[in-house]
Amino acid sequence: MKRICIINPITTLEFEEGTKREVAVYSSNDVKIEVVTVTRGPASIECRFDEALAVPGVLEKIKEVESKADAIVVNCFGDPGVEAAREITRVPVIGPGETSMLLATLYGHRFSVVTVLDRLAPIIEDITLKSGIRNKLASVRAAGIPVLDLEKDLERLMNILAKEAVCAVEQDGAHVIVLGCTGMAGLGNRVNSFLREKGYDVPVIDPVAVAIKVAVLSATLGLTHSGLTYPAPPDKPRVW
Amino acid sequence: MKRICIINPITTLEFEEGTKREVAVYSSNDVKIEVVTVTRGPASIECRFDEALAVPGVLEKIKEVESKADAIVVNCFGDPGVEAAREITRVPVIGPGETSMLLATLYGHRFSVVTVLDRLAPIIEDITLKSGIRNKLASVRAAGIPVLDLEKDLERLMNILAKEAVCAVEQDGAHVIVLGCTGMAGLGNRVNSFLREKGYDVPVIDPVAVAIKVAVLSATLGLTHSGLTYPAPPDKPRVW
Amino acid sequence: MKRICIINPITTLEFEEGTKREVAVYSSNDVKIEVVTVTRGPASIECRFDEALAVPGVLEKIKEVESKADAIVVNCFGDPGVEAAREITRVPVIGPGETSMLLATLYGHRFSVVTVLDRLAPIIEDITLKSGIRNKLASVRAAGIPVLDLEKDLERLMNILAKEAVCAVEQDGAHVIVLGCTGMAGLGNRVNSFLREKGYDVPVIDPVAVAIKVAVLSATLGLTHSGLTYPAPPDKPRVW
Amino acid sequence: MKRICIINPITTLEFEEGTKREVAVYSSNDVKIEVVTVTRGPASIECRFDEALAVPGVLEKIKEVESKADAIVVNCFGDPGVEAAREITRVPVIGPGETSMLLATLYGHRFSVVTVLDRLAPIIEDITLKSGIRNKLASVRAAGIPVLDLEKDLERLMNILAKEAVCAVEQDGAHVIVLGCTGMAGLGNRVNSFLREKGYDVPVIDPVAVAIKVAVLSATLGLTHSGLTYPAPPDKPRVW
Amino acid sequence: MKRICIINPITTLEFEEGTKREVAVYSSNDVKIEVVTVTRGPASIECRFDEALAVPGVLEKIKEVESKADAIVVNCFGDPGVEAAREITRVPVIGPGETSMLLATLYGHRFSVVTVLDRLAPIIEDITLKSGIRNKLASVRAAGIPVLDLEKDLERLMNILAKEAVCAVEQDGAHVIVLGCTGMAGLGNRVNSFLREKGYDVPVIDPVAVAIKVAVLSATLGLTHSGLTYPAPPDKPRVW
Amino acid sequence: MKRICIINPITTLEFEEGTKREVAVYSSNDVKIEVVTVTRGPASIECRFDEALAVPGVLEKIKEVESKADAIVVNCFGDPGVEAAREITRVPVIGPGETSMLLATLYGHRFSVVTVLDRLAPIIEDITLKSGIRNKLASVRAAGIPVLDLEKDLERLMNILAKEAVCAVEQDGAHVIVLGCTGMAGLGNRVNSFLREKGYDVPVIDPVAVAIKVAVLSATLGLTHSGLTYPAPPDKPRVW
Repeated sequence: MKRICIINPITTLEFEEGTKREVAVYSSNDVKIEVVTVTRGPASIECRFDEALAVPGVLEKIKEVESKADAIVVNCFGDPGVEAAREITRVPVIGPGETSMLLATLYGHRFSVVTVLDRLAPIIEDITLKSGIRNKLASVRAAGIPVLDLEKDLERLMNILAKEAVCAVEQDGAHVIVLGCTGMAGLGNRVNSFLREKGYDVPVIDPVAVAIKVAVLSATLGLTHSGLTYPAPPDKPRVW
Repeated sequence: MKRICIINPITTLEFEEGTKREVAVYSSNDVKIEVVTVTRGPASIECRFDEALAVPGVLEKIKEVESKADAIVVNCFGDPGVEAAREITRVPVIGPGETSMLLATLYGHRFSVVTVLDRLAPIIEDITLKSGIRNKLASVRAAGIPVLDLEKDLERLMNILAKEAVCAVEQDGAHVIVLGCTGMAGLGNRVNSFLREKGYDVPVIDPVAVAIKVAVLSATLGLTHSGLTYPAPPDKPRVW
Repeated sequence: MKRICIINPITTLEFEEGTKREVAVYSSNDVKIEVVTVTRGPASIECRFDEALAVPGVLEKIKEVESKADAIVVNCFGDPGVEAAREITRVPVIGPGETSMLLATLYGHRFSVVTVLDRLAPIIEDITLKSGIRNKLASVRAAGIPVLDLEKDLERLMNILAKEAVCAVEQDGAHVIVLGCTGMAGLGNRVNSFLREKGYDVPVIDPVAVAIKVAVLSATLGLTHSGLTYPAPPDKPRVW
Repeated sequence: MKRICIINPITTLEFEEGTKREVAVYSSNDVKIEVVTVTRGPASIECRFDEALAVPGVLEKIKEVESKADAIVVNCFGDPGVEAAREITRVPVIGPGETSMLLATLYGHRFSVVTVLDRLAPIIEDITLKSGIRNKLASVRAAGIPVLDLEKDLERLMNILAKEAVCAVEQDGAHVIVLGCTGMAGLGNRVNSFLREKGYDVPVIDPVAVAIKVAVLSATLGLTHSGLTYPAPPDKPRVW
Repeated sequence: MKRICIINPITTLEFEEGTKREVAVYSSNDVKIEVVTVTRGPASIECRFDEALAVPGVLEKIKEVESKADAIVVNCFGDPGVEAAREITRVPVIGPGETSMLLATLYGHRFSVVTVLDRLAPIIEDITLKSGIRNKLASVRAAGIPVLDLEKDLERLMNILAKEAVCAVEQDGAHVIVLGCTGMAGLGNRVNSFLREKGYDVPVIDPVAVAIKVAVLSATLGLTHSGLTYPAPPDKPRVW
Repeated sequence: MKRICIINPITTLEFEEGTKREVAVYSSNDVKIEVVTVTRGPASIECRFDEALAVPGVLEKIKEVESKADAIVVNCFGDPGVEAAREITRVPVIGPGETSMLLATLYGHRFSVVTVLDRLAPIIEDITLKSGIRNKLASVRAAGIPVLDLEKDLERLMNILAKEAVCAVEQDGAHVIVLGCTGMAGLGNRVNSFLREKGYDVPVIDPVAVAIKVAVLSATLGLTHSGLTYPAPPDKPRVW
């Protein structure tokens, strides 16, 4: 049995229940999923400042959970702290953003990300520049809804996501849609159905789902990040 | 339960047994794996000519197996026929080459491919150019052993793979190793151990393993290739 | 005298006459052009599936004609089998797609391809990614007419090509137009005249013309593809 | 008069004196330079983990100093927190790494970075991928000396830097050298002289010097980062 | 004190007065700025032909002024002769185009250039391809006013620049504006104010200002172009 | 009959005879080749300074010869003045450098340029960056012989070229060789033979030959550079 630990990198405890509900479907006799929440950081992550403040809390949790996890997912599309975390643990650490965008390129010619806020577009584009897949990114579109309001009116959210996904296909040339916020977990199928009704047979990638599956894949195959790219940090005083 | 069909795209029937043996480890109550072999094509795939001749046989098999498969893997690192296959089936079709090299970028800064023959280097480099990850490819190295001879002297093969992997790390700056031939299935852990003995904590990616896992991921999440990138071919006479 | 062999990679024999008519203008005392047609494959090439099925027929013909040709052109914009063909002959093998798009970059800042069907856009974009000239491709536009219908209403075709070429210039920033189907051979000048009437002095590249001229260039200068990139395939059983 | 504030992002207070000494030369009647030190974070920054832990301290200081600074330099080659900082202040925030590598491309065809530890190479390469100048980076070389030991034996450091700079020129094709650690401030001229003695007329860029000058440039010209790329963070609870 | 020499590469002497007026603001006790004008070349630079004809005059001036300058700016956004000049002098030679576009990438995610004439767009795009920052260029827009008419109706020019800058932001996704002609010196602040009124907090980069500041930076830090990239030309007869 | 005019952009009249001799082989009943020499410029072109000084003479000649030429070749690998020339004539203007390197990508995976002097390497690399084919360039190697000495000891030149070509193949991974100086015209076959003797079946591209053939191709097909990329220069005073 593989134990997957999901770290919610925001202090909003209500999200933990939602996350547990969403990820339950990926549990099985072979896969046990635990969800934990950081004790410091921002209430939600919607900018670089939030992202930066989330990282120490994530790193704390990494050390706490590593002994009881076979793979760890940091549950935010911006992958806060993922690279730093890989230096302090040999347990695979998976970031939903990088992972889902790379996998998106397997399913079609070009993908669009539909995320929460416009201001995230440059950040997401920069991830693709670093990964090499900038040419595969058709556009970043935003629902214009803050993370903490996502669940307030799910029907409205669904309508906006569906509309933006259609625009991504019709105007930006997207062939694949990536949901650009882990708070949208579980909505992929509904967006996909909506697109299908419009006549577009377009995969919609739920970054949480993909991240969990790649976490399981890593744990099962015994794959973890390279010790050459992510060697353990040298000893030294550090005041967190 | 998800049914994964592996198509061996070469006519050498002996490989089917080997493949079955290697992939058995990925079967479970949830995953049933079937291996089939094409009835026309080359005895092995070691060049563009072989690759081209393998494709019609692969496409034939795709149509045969699609109704009883939830995902299909074409069992060759060159991914012969994978893109064409996606036009004739809505079942996800996974190519071990593209998939394992994209995933390799998740595990470290730069990867090297260790394959069978030098002549494959330009072909593999071209795949990374198309995928956008050319900058992540440190080098392509070759064992200098034809596909059909791989199993003739497994110790010699292991020694050469280990030596080339070490060279990739020490001379080319590789942080991750990708085995560049599906005929090397099952050797990843041994190469990894060898590298570890040399002091290099470097993931070694077995393309068959990764392809099967991503096939299961696709089937489980209901993800398949985009109908916009891969629309069904128009009707017309075709003489195979 | 240089003998150029043009291989029509589709089984529609009617196209052979059309091709002969179109290429006659490139014959001379110094250049003899022969047109042959494959005996297996699809009736026309409009997708990856067609392309894949066309290849074995092309390779068969390559072996048949190589002794009586100084250069060979595979007469389809998708260049089916061109790379595989180079492994089985030392006679230069020219693909109209790759050749005309590379040459297009010599004549202006950015080019658009006007092809038959929208579904070809990702395929054509991928060629430019591999060639490195993706930044030079302004857009791919399509006439929306299947290959086998191209000659049914030549005036309508001309009107659509002209309109798409103008859109490519005005909306996409194209400075050069490449006709993206060898079935459009001979229409370049008319599209060019139309653009000129609109006030746009824009070269229109006919891929067949350019491919034949580069085939003659190769034959005359004794240039053929590198034996290091395209070494002869190893001997082995192959069931076509 | 322009007030430049330099934030040392490491808790090692001894470095503040060194920094003050090094940057004194850039003070004048027109430019007043202040150096401050974070109160939490790592003793030095040598990996992604250190970098991540340094950021909250940097962001704290940004808010403290912004009212009395016309431009701010974060004094580490890895630019920790620079992008996040730009969201919380409209005072220009300059990162020595990004700035000096971009400027290096103005002085020659290709540059090498000589930094403290090998493990930083992937991090530095990733910065150039994001900036677009990966093709301008000849290599990253390392002195093999931890940051806190840099000043322990200055002659040894100089010898190693000089040796690595020569190797960068002779083996990697570097035409410009960038010192890849702000702890090397003030050594540029000596490395340059050494290269000159070897016959290489090669600029050596001191990232601290360049960052201060670009900070002054920004302050003087009234240039600061775009509010569209770096909008102010939304209000929300944040536990640092 | 650092002596900056600005070479106006066009024969229109009236521009010298304007340039002197504009750059006076950058003079100080520490920086003395001289403006000189070529004695041969075109009246203005608006195409590659003008650029080519301007170069010999620039190179003549370089030799004339190098002994009395600590850094030289060639006062045209197209940087005519800058690379050739670096071969004949060891005094730093700064080009406003390359310099301001590279610096623009420090201030925001993507920049647009607003220049005089549409025909310059391909030339400017080519500079970014060579520099590696093509992905950072959102668009090139033009005022549609020839260089020599720029000052004829300054209000009209301002209105057009402001309108194009707004379009660049709203339609092309620019986060930074670069004025694409040194004849627009001094207008950056007004365009910036206009954008601010529209609600866009967007830096506007004046290429002359930035070039002068980087010239001073080079002179002060003792940085000049690499002798490996720009070795002195061999002796030989040359008829100018 | 197509009239090709070759402009030698250097004042060394002796080269005109050599050029005539070399290009005679490309004359025929259909192709008449004329060679002319500029009356101002450098004795040879070996750096950016030479290149810049050569341009006005080239542009003068362009205007002189355009009425009696169907295509023009500027006979230097650095393509001096080619882009400017295209603005002042509608006759196709071909540059041997850009043309031969683009064509080289058709013949093999990666090419090396063997040129006269090391100092040209950055210039040649920059051309490939602009063309998009930087990834196809394996290396630039130099014979270490100035242009005007090339013919002094042809055997020595041949030996060095052959040696460098072999090194390009064995050490740099070149699959195609491009001769990087038009003064090497006619030597391609001999270098090719030498490589063949070493066991390398590698095309060697003579840039003059390829440029003439592409000039004929352009003239015959009625293709010339885009008026949108190269519009005619505006009228204005210009002092050459």
